[in-house]
Amino acid sequence: MSQSPKPGQVMGRRGFLSGAAAAGGAAAIGGLTGPAAGANPENLPPNVPDWSRYLGEGVDARPYGVPSEYEAHVVRRNVAWLTASTESSVNFTPLHEIDGILTPNGLCFERHHSGIAEIDPADHRLMINGLVDKPLIFTMEDIMRFPRTNKVYFLECAANTGMEWRGAQLNGCQFTHGMVHCVMYTGVPLRLILEEAGLKTNAKWIMPEGGDAAGMNRSVPLEKALDDCLVAFKMNGEALRPEQGYPLRLVVPGWEGNMWVKWLRRIEVGDQPWHTREETSKYTDLMEDGRSRRFTWYMDCKSVITNPSPQAPLLHKGHNILTGLAWSGRGTVERVDVTLDGGKNWRTARIDGLSLDKAVHRFYFEFDWNGEPLLLQSRAVDSTGYVQPTKDELRAVRGTNSIYHNNGIQTWHVQQNGEVENVEIS
Amino acid sequence: MSQSPKPGQVMGRRGFLSGAAAAGGAAAIGGLTGPAAGANPENLPPNVPDWSRYLGEGVDARPYGVPSEYEAHVVRRNVAWLTASTESSVNFTPLHEIDGILTPNGLCFERHHSGIAEIDPADHRLMINGLVDKPLIFTMEDIMRFPRTNKVYFLECAANTGMEWRGAQLNGCQFTHGMVHCVMYTGVPLRLILEEAGLKTNAKWIMPEGGDAAGMNRSVPLEKALDDCLVAFKMNGEALRPEQGYPLRLVVPGWEGNMWVKWLRRIEVGDQPWHTREETSKYTDLMEDGRSRRFTWYMDCKSVITNPSPQAPLLHKGHNILTGLAWSGRGTVERVDVTLDGGKNWRTARIDGLSLDKAVHRFYFEFDWNGEPLLLQSRAVDSTGYVQPTKDELRAVRGTNSIYHNNGIQTWHVQQNGEVENVEIS
Repeated sequence: MSQSPKPGQVMGRRGFLSGAAAAGGAAAIGGLTGPAAGANPENLPPNVPDWSRYLGEGVDARPYGVPSEYEAHVVRRNVAWLTASTESSVNFTPLHEIDGILTPNGLCFERHHSGIAEIDPADHRLMINGLVDKPLIFTMEDIMRFPRTNKVYFLECAANTGMEWRGAQLNGCQFTHGMVHCVMYTGVPLRLILEEAGLKTNAKWIMPEGGDAAGMNRSVPLEKALDDCLVAFKMNGEALRPEQGYPLRLVVPGWEGNMWVKWLRRIEVGDQPWHTREETSKYTDLMEDGRSRRFTWYMDCKSVITNPSPQAPLLHKGHNILTGLAWSGRGTVERVDVTLDGGKNWRTARIDGLSLDKAVHRFYFEFDWNGEPLLLQSRAVDSTGYVQPTKDELRAVRGTNSIYHNNGIQTWHVQQNGEVENVEIS
Repeated sequence: MSQSPKPGQVMGRRGFLSGAAAAGGAAAIGGLTGPAAGANPENLPPNVPDWSRYLGEGVDARPYGVPSEYEAHVVRRNVAWLTASTESSVNFTPLHEIDGILTPNGLCFERHHSGIAEIDPADHRLMINGLVDKPLIFTMEDIMRFPRTNKVYFLECAANTGMEWRGAQLNGCQFTHGMVHCVMYTGVPLRLILEEAGLKTNAKWIMPEGGDAAGMNRSVPLEKALDDCLVAFKMNGEALRPEQGYPLRLVVPGWEGNMWVKWLRRIEVGDQPWHTREETSKYTDLMEDGRSRRFTWYMDCKSVITNPSPQAPLLHKGHNILTGLAWSGRGTVERVDVTLDGGKNWRTARIDGLSLDKAVHRFYFEFDWNGEPLLLQSRAVDSTGYVQPTKDELRAVRGTNSIYHNNGIQTWHVQQNGEVENVEIS
């Protein structure tokens, strides 16, 4: 019944891989058809891989599992020159190494203002005060007794792609777009916690505050707080990671990441915004005329091609897969178009898998590469009909003083050798 | 605008937590309202938590993140007496510690037949041979050039809950039900890979084979292979973990876990099943009359209450959250009913979050506990209308010789002190 290929045979391909070389594969055939369990390793042909010849580690080796040693390059990376210290800094998710719509917890980008607070949950409290009928303090056990829900949301730092306002700067989607992640949260609707305290009739705003040394805080309109915000304690099924706010973080779906206060210890209820440091001197957008946009909460529709990209060059002519991510703080992504020639021709990509409100969407586009240079772009359209703008369209409206809210179309230049660079085209 | 509670004040609660004590919380108020950034730690009140007084670790501390040290108890656990060696053994997912529908990669249970093969993906190959027009060998790069898709599926070992056939044995849902996990896979539809090789007209079965020393293999009907099987290379966004088949695993949605061949190196196409060791002496179900059920592929509808459970006792009278997982290899879960009194009264639980085909479903049920003993059970109904049976109903049909496919209703006995034990009731 078995029909085995001969060693060294170059085998024909049908559809997808017609341009592929198969010699490398054929050389390993002995290993592929090799040992049955219990065979004496000494009698096996020399090209049987080691991993088929010996018992591997057992089920007690790693109570909490880790990636393969061959994936050691798949890590968050920071940029030393970007900030004065690593405690008030950022690192970036390797978007070109992940797939699907979920970000593994170990790879979710970090942004701290005073380093990672290492909190003992037994000693952690959440206080609700201000314009409430009864100020309350909750232990973690208290929080766990509220009804909870599970939602997948993206979180994007407002400064994501911020370096690109003044032209192509960073070479790699990890660095240009890697301040976005997407996980499934388990948490309590904030509405239930506020209702437990009882909102006074003049309540209009809340101020969540973090338990880190920075005491990070932001003003959030009560309407948003009562709509879809969560007080989350789990991400992707397990406890929040320390760098993501363990044991409690505020989830503010679709809005800029710095409002998702980590290490959440207090929520004050008020009748007007507090104009805290992080919503005045920071996280406002300086316009060309010297005025600033304030309360630019929404993360508008955006997309990026993650493969190919500068850290993930094209390796083969012939059939290739282009993939990327798209998201919108205002709903779902309805369509992603891609171009290989800098915008002369656009084709609709395939959005694969789940399309969830305020979550990243994964798109794919299959193409044949003949070795000529390419100018790759993606352009997303969200469920409100909003179309992702070009960087020049953004600059025409906002100037080039901004740091935040750059959702412009990204261009990658694929060279003849398959290498990819970050460029801008007009 | 701020109205702070006084230290020591016991604050009133409204709805959910009316029975909760608040004294523990109130004692920490100084810490909650404490330091602004830059305050001198020496001048702060002594009850400010340390984590608010000093800078934490920076963004270069952990390129690949890990859980908090306070979560060190959330690990897979094996049972030493269950198997003769750890290389051909199993460990269990801590179901009582996770939430939502996704299992973190580091907590996905393990089942190996010869330990964990540690494969270098650069040297790994996948061969397709047998009743095909052109035998093919693929490198990992070849596989990455096929169209891919993203799907969330549960994987359950056929032996999950196997110890319970002869009565309540193991005390903890981690041990009774912890051989199930649920992740999002990225992979290539197996259909596309088989079509690339070209199936001969008499092709009826495939035999996937693993690259570990056991050379794990099973016969899979071609109809299933062409329907929804995937050759997966990522789980929850990142590369498969070594213990889950890195760099390639077969995904066989809804069917027993041992068919999901890990470290996938070869797929042979044939015209009849191979009757390999793992589908004859193992993974068949010995009936009372000495005959065995063979090819019992489907994992039928099942559920378990994960909290409260023996490892997660009730800590408070008053309002509490009951939660658990339900799944079916034949579709979605339509309903989960729970009882607190051993089946006298059933109430419908709330299924929260995504309801996906052949994925776990999360259910919640809120209840008040007055301190009396409880007999907790959950009973799931799937999209085919199949109702999860009692253990006694299963035994009446299958006897007590079986190891595999115990999807009977689990009972937990909550004692007056809140502790929980595994029991059976008739």
